[in-house]
This record gives sequence, structure tokens and C-alpha cells, in this order.
Amino acid sequence: MTDFSSIAAFEAALGALPAANTSAIAAARARQGELTKPPGSLGRLEDIAVFMAGWQGTACPTLTRGRAAIFAGNHGFTIHGVSAFPASVTASMVANFSAGGAAINALAQAAGLDLKIVALELDRPTVDFTIAPAMHADECLAALSSGAEVVTPDLQILIVGEMGIGNTTAAAALCARSLGGSVAEWTGPGTGVDSAGIARKIAVIERALGHHADAPHTPFETLRRLGGREIAAIAGAVVKARQLRIPVVLDGFITCAAIAPLAAAVAAITDHCIAGHCSAEPGHVRLLNRLGLAPLLNLGLRLGEGSGAALAVPVIRAALAAHAQMATFAEAGVAGSL
Amino acid sequence: MTDFSSIAAFEAALGALPAANTSAIAAARARQGELTKPPGSLGRLEDIAVFMAGWQGTACPTLTRGRAAIFAGNHGFTIHGVSAFPASVTASMVANFSAGGAAINALAQAAGLDLKIVALELDRPTVDFTIAPAMHADECLAALSSGAEVVTPDLQILIVGEMGIGNTTAAAALCARSLGGSVAEWTGPGTGVDSAGIARKIAVIERALGHHADAPHTPFETLRRLGGREIAAIAGAVVKARQLRIPVVLDGFITCAAIAPLAAAVAAITDHCIAGHCSAEPGHVRLLNRLGLAPLLNLGLRLGEGSGAALAVPVIRAALAAHAQMATFAEAGVAGSL
Repeated sequence: MTDFSSIAAFEAALGALPAANTSAIAAARARQGELTKPPGSLGRLEDIAVFMAGWQGTACPTLTRGRAAIFAGNHGFTIHGVSAFPASVTASMVANFSAGGAAINALAQAAGLDLKIVALELDRPTVDFTIAPAMHADECLAALSSGAEVVTPDLQILIVGEMGIGNTTAAAALCARSLGGSVAEWTGPGTGVDSAGIARKIAVIERALGHHADAPHTPFETLRRLGGREIAAIAGAVVKARQLRIPVVLDGFITCAAIAPLAAAVAAITDHCIAGHCSAEPGHVRLLNRLGLAPLLNLGLRLGEGSGAALAVPVIRAALAAHAQMATFAEAGVAGSL
Repeated sequence: MTDFSSIAAFEAALGALPAANTSAIAAARARQGELTKPPGSLGRLEDIAVFMAGWQGTACPTLTRGRAAIFAGNHGFTIHGVSAFPASVTASMVANFSAGGAAINALAQAAGLDLKIVALELDRPTVDFTIAPAMHADECLAALSSGAEVVTPDLQILIVGEMGIGNTTAAAALCARSLGGSVAEWTGPGTGVDSAGIARKIAVIERALGHHADAPHTPFETLRRLGGREIAAIAGAVVKARQLRIPVVLDGFITCAAIAPLAAAVAAITDHCIAGHCSAEPGHVRLLNRLGLAPLLNLGLRLGEGSGAALAVPVIRAALAAHAQMATFAEAGVAGSL
């Protein structure tokens, strides 16, 4: 029993996204106005508290049950030399996640998050997208469902992250097809290719875009043709989280690119999403702008693994602590409104 | 027994600032290069780990004992109508801190910080600095020492914050005198005055700068003439922390302005300082640039109380967690260097 057992089921989910609770939003906003501080002086923290209130449906949201879900996949186009690292590193890093030795292990623990690693058929890379769709429809549906399955109703927040050698190339292809612009605008060094490597990436992406140019521009077809299993899983997790009204913290360029095909069709898909950070990958700031998301952090990270999203969680938790614990003017007996 | 019992003692401390441990820095930098991630891919987190290593004098620094010290003071120049709020609010907010109802209470707790509130003679405001020095020399030394006294050798990090109705006016005056530029460039809305209020602030600061123009441009004289008790206490705390090699997280415009007179004389005073955030007060970004500090966070806060600095602590702690807990390539058996 999968969450997205058919293309129609996925498209129906995208077409029926629930909205945030407007009365909880109003109540949280009113509470912010009564707390002992000049109005607006907590900046983004106030917006975060109100955002979380809307999705939890309560004026005083909490954050004790969060999960970081990290999806891993391999890509057929890596035969074209688009990454600084061999595709075998994807599996090595998944082993490192399982052993507790990666950045996300430390950062998820520091953020008080449960960590779920989902390796998606690493020994069966997607098809080279320059010559055919990366995935069959059933494979893409399975990946979407794998993402949805990690999203349980008890969660108060979901962090999505990824590992997949070569996947900045898939991400740039998804952005260019979904949002337009030149391939070069979306293509960067990833984990560290040089300018010749970037030129190879651009050429590969342009061949892929050409090959799939006449295919329907639906979210599903774009994910299936140009994405990858870890990317489709992120899209599935984000849609499922929305169905359950669970806010999502996006990580870097790849997790945001996984949403780009959805956002091109249904802009409101980002309404329950927070951009955890702006990565150093140059396409990310452009993509955040196109998605209408303002990143919480900007620390020059370019690792993936959900690292930047996990880092944002303590800031979100602090915002909720201030919202819940601060005294009102009436409670504190501070003269007038501050 | 005070830490800064004479002007000479304060100046001697400023003239003999200890440096970070270069071998610990080198060891931490080397460790970062061995961790299972592409080199540099954790961005600022890598720099933070190395910075903390240098001041703790160990390749693997930790962060379990941190303190947020919030200093409060009142200012004589508030009679000129430079703030949106009456000076009595300083004491009301100190009572709110003591009762646990302010933003910093929630944020310090969320950051795992011990919180120390130091109210500095709130019923005895400084002298109006447009007609005389804000403090006598003994008063300024007492304030510097009050700051130093909260800095105990067991601390691994110190967060400084403040509360003082009107103190963006003092901060702007300190910046203009210490760093140059027009008064207007340093003057903003503070907790929320309108354009007429800003014009009043500028006029008051220009009168003060004129009155003190011929005084010696030493850190002590500038703090004494244009600062306030909470501002001098911050300066004292930052210098004392440096003597003990304890890193400091600065908060917003006022805490940074407290350092400006020191930095104008001894640029290295900021070497053990992290800018926790960039506040919405317009002078802050300018001041950070002049101090050579890149803020960790930029969330539109303009509250003071150490709020932005406390928010940065979980990011610093996460940086140390990644640094300490990640596997090296050798430990993880990841092929080659990633």
C-alpha cells in the first residue's frame, strides 16, 4: 500500500493541498503583539512562530517531535563525468550515515531530531537522462511513496535532505525545465568540479533538456524524466507532509529543486515550507527567489545531507520558546505597551 | 577588589590582549580536512570550530558552560525625547528579566545558557552627555568592573546583551566619535521612533560630539563621556573575557558600539568575538563591517537583551558537534578523499 499508487493519486494530492489554520495564525499574531517587546522586534522569529501556529492549528505551537529524512540515490548520467567523485561514494556515505559518522548525524542530534536514512536502490542507478527518462513511471511512483512513508502523523516538523553523487546536475536540469532560464544560470560546482566540469555539466543538461523537450510539462513527468529516486522521494515527502499539515524545512539546492516542478504547477506547494538556509551552490539563491522562500540561515554550506535544514531547527525551536514563554505586557505589569 | 581599579589598569589590559592558540587552530583546521565531507563544505561551521579551538586551546573544543550577561543602565540624555519609551521601562524590563518573562529568558534557556542580569544603578542615570561627560572616571571604572565580574574562568563562551532606554543614541555617538562618518549614518529608529525622532537623536548626538570634541580620543574617555553604565560594563566584560581567552558572542548595535572605542585603538579586540547576528538597526551592518565581523545570523531582530547572540549559540554548538563527532575518511573507510 503506497501513498502515491498512481500518477492520478499524486496529481490529486497536488491539486488538493490543505491550507494553514487562519484562526490559529490570527491568534498567534495577536499574542506576538502582546508580548513584552517592541512590536516586530523579534523579526523572523515572530513570523516563524505564526507560521508554525498555522500548520499546527494552535496559537502556541511546540516542537518536540521532529525528523530529518535523508534520501539517497544514484544517477545514470554520472557516466558523463559530471561529479568530482565516483558514484560509489553515495553508498559509502550512506554507510557513514548508518554508522553515525556524517555531518547530519551530529547536526540532527544537536537539533533534537530523529534521523531516518532512506537508501533508494543504490545498486540500480537511474537511466542516463540524456537518452531516456531517468525512471519508468512505476519507479518514480515508488520513489514518491518512499518519501511519503517517512512522514508520520506524529511529526511536528520534517527536515528533508539528500545524498546522491551527481545530483546537482539533475537539480539544475529540473530548475531549467520547470522555471526557465539558461542552463548555465542553474549550474554550479556542486561538491567541487572545476570550470571544465561545469561546462560538462551544462552540456549534459542541455542534451537532456533537448531529449525531453516535447514531453508533457507536468510535475510527475519532469520528476520522472530529469529527477532521480532521492529527488522524487523528497517531492513525495513534501506533498505527504502537506497533507498532514506538517511543516517542512528544506535544505539546499537539490531539495529545493525537487519542489521546483511542483511549484511551477502549484505555487502554493511551498506554503508549508521553510528554507533552512541558502547554500553556496550558486543556483540556490536564484531558486529560493523563484520559490518565494527567504532562507533562515546563510552560512556558506554546500554539503547537502539536510545539514543546513537541521541547523535551522534550533532557531525555529527558539522562536517557539520565545512565543510560548514570554510574558505579556499585562502579565509583566510593564507600563503601557513597550 | 575590582578588575579595572584604575584607568591605567584598563589601558594595560587593552594593551596586552592574549592571542589564540595557533597550534590548536592548526590541529582543528587539519581535523576539518580529514572529516567525511568535501573540503570547506560546512562553510562557516568549519570556521567556528577552528575559532573555538583557538580560544579553548584544544583541537576539539566543547560548549557546555556558557553565560548570557545582560547589563542594564539609564541615560541622562533621554530628557531630550530620543526614545519611544520612558526611561522607567528599563527598570520594568529588568523586573521582567528577573521574573523570567522576557525574550532573553526564553532564548537563553533554549540555548542552554546561564543568565545573569546586572542592573547598574538604574535610579541614578548618567549625566546628560550634551553638557558634561556621562560618567565620572570612578563611575566608568565601576561599570567596567561590573562587566568584568560576571566573567568567570569556567565559562566556555560569553554572550553579552543590554537593556537601556535611549541607548541606541549613545551607541551612535560612540560610533561617530570612534569611527568617523556622519551622525546620520549611525542613527536609526531604535525601538521605533519616527523620522522626527531620528532627527532629534541626530541633533542630540551632534551637540554631544561638539561638547566633547576636544577631549582625548582614548577608549576610556570615549566610553566615559558618551557611553553609559551598561555600555561600559559590556566593554569591561569583553576585555575580561579576552584576558581569560573566553570567546564572546556580541549581540546587536549597542553591544558592538560598546567595542567601537576599543577597536579604534586596538583593532585586535574583536579577535575573540563572534557577531551573533545583524540587527535591523541600520547602523549595525555598517558597524560590523568596520569591526571586520561577519554576522552569523540575519533575522531582522531589533530587540537587544542579547537576543540575537543567544540565538547564535545553538549554531556554534552544532558546529562543534560536527567537528567532534564526524568520522574521518580513514575511520569511515570512504574511498579516497571525498
